[in-house]
Amino acid sequence: MTDLKLYSMPSSGNSYKVRLLLALLQRSFTHVALEEGSDALVRVHEEGWLPFGKLPVLELGDGTRVPESNAILCYLANGTALLPDDPVRRAHAQAWMFWEQNQHEGVIAVRASLRSYPSRAHEATPDRMADLLSRGHEILGVMEDRLQEAAWLTGDQPTVADVSLYAYTHTADSRGGYDLQRFPAIRAWLQRMTEQPGYVGLDHVPG
Amino acid sequence: MTDLKLYSMPSSGNSYKVRLLLALLQRSFTHVALEEGSDALVRVHEEGWLPFGKLPVLELGDGTRVPESNAILCYLANGTALLPDDPVRRAHAQAWMFWEQNQHEGVIAVRASLRSYPSRAHEATPDRMADLLSRGHEILGVMEDRLQEAAWLTGDQPTVADVSLYAYTHTADSRGGYDLQRFPAIRAWLQRMTEQPGYVGLDHVPG
Repeated sequence: MTDLKLYSMPSSGNSYKVRLLLALLQRSFTHVALEEGSDALVRVHEEGWLPFGKLPVLELGDGTRVPESNAILCYLANGTALLPDDPVRRAHAQAWMFWEQNQHEGVIAVRASLRSYPSRAHEATPDRMADLLSRGHEILGVMEDRLQEAAWLTGDQPTVADVSLYAYTHTADSRGGYDLQRFPAIRAWLQRMTEQPGYVGLDHVPG
Repeated sequence: MTDLKLYSMPSSGNSYKVRLLLALLQRSFTHVALEEGSDALVRVHEEGWLPFGKLPVLELGDGTRVPESNAILCYLANGTALLPDDPVRRAHAQAWMFWEQNQHEGVIAVRASLRSYPSRAHEATPDRMADLLSRGHEILGVMEDRLQEAAWLTGDQPTVADVSLYAYTHTADSRGGYDLQRFPAIRAWLQRMTEQPGYVGLDHVPG
């Protein structure tokens, strides 16, 4: 029985996080794809039910909706090895995820967005792009330092923190224009993620 | 026995969140105040152990450190009524907290910072301040809509989500220059928080 419905944006890293976690957990779900700029997404905005006005949103069997990609990850991974049962390890995983939303996403995903969407091209001034580039390399440096000492962000096993950070890091070069050659531990970690049972790429959109 | 040590910045909303939660939980702790621009904070940065380079940081009895204000809140509130045991209510609380770090803090706290710290005055261009003002009022509108239908962000009981959002919202007018008169449900919610047993204000710095 499929009791989960995911509203997600195929091209968005925040949406991809949830699709990747569901694949790793081998959970079945109904997928509602709402691409940026699509008529279907415009209709959803007009209906006015989208919490915080953003995707992804997980809808449970009883119709309850859970917004915010990282909150959805913690909800779905609860009781599995991907959300550590140990309180300190769980706190460390969630610390990485709050940092992702506060620091990483607002720089690395934003630079990728400014390069990708023609509607945002006017915001991509040379000064802003240079600033986002240098700040993004600093942020990647924080991850590199950690991944030089451990295989995964919170230790020797992958958690929701790795799923969360993977989404925008694995396209930091191709979409964001960042130089991942400087970060060998990040590249090895990205490779390890692709080797996890059930792994799916950003382009794998179910349904 | 005091087994907790909190490194916090007295004037920072992110640090205040943790001091407020500890007060509501009536937990004793050792407080290490590290004010912006102080020699003590410079030394801590030089020592290089500050996770993510930011405060607050909670140090446990065995020396383990937990960074990120919202991750600390979830860690400390685990097993108490302030972190809902029900998975869906917990997911909703954490959704508000991720939204806080991704949307609210980067607008409302940033505008307050640009107004407060002389060292940042050159960043406070009229265009930027006007943009942060209108975006902040939209963000406060999201909270207002929710608090028109419930006493607290996740229902009829306060949670870590309320503690988290309270920190920068309660100074949005005095520090950020936002007009809270437009948001009566937010003002009633701010008042309710001050009436919680154990409540302490931003200026109450222990130790």
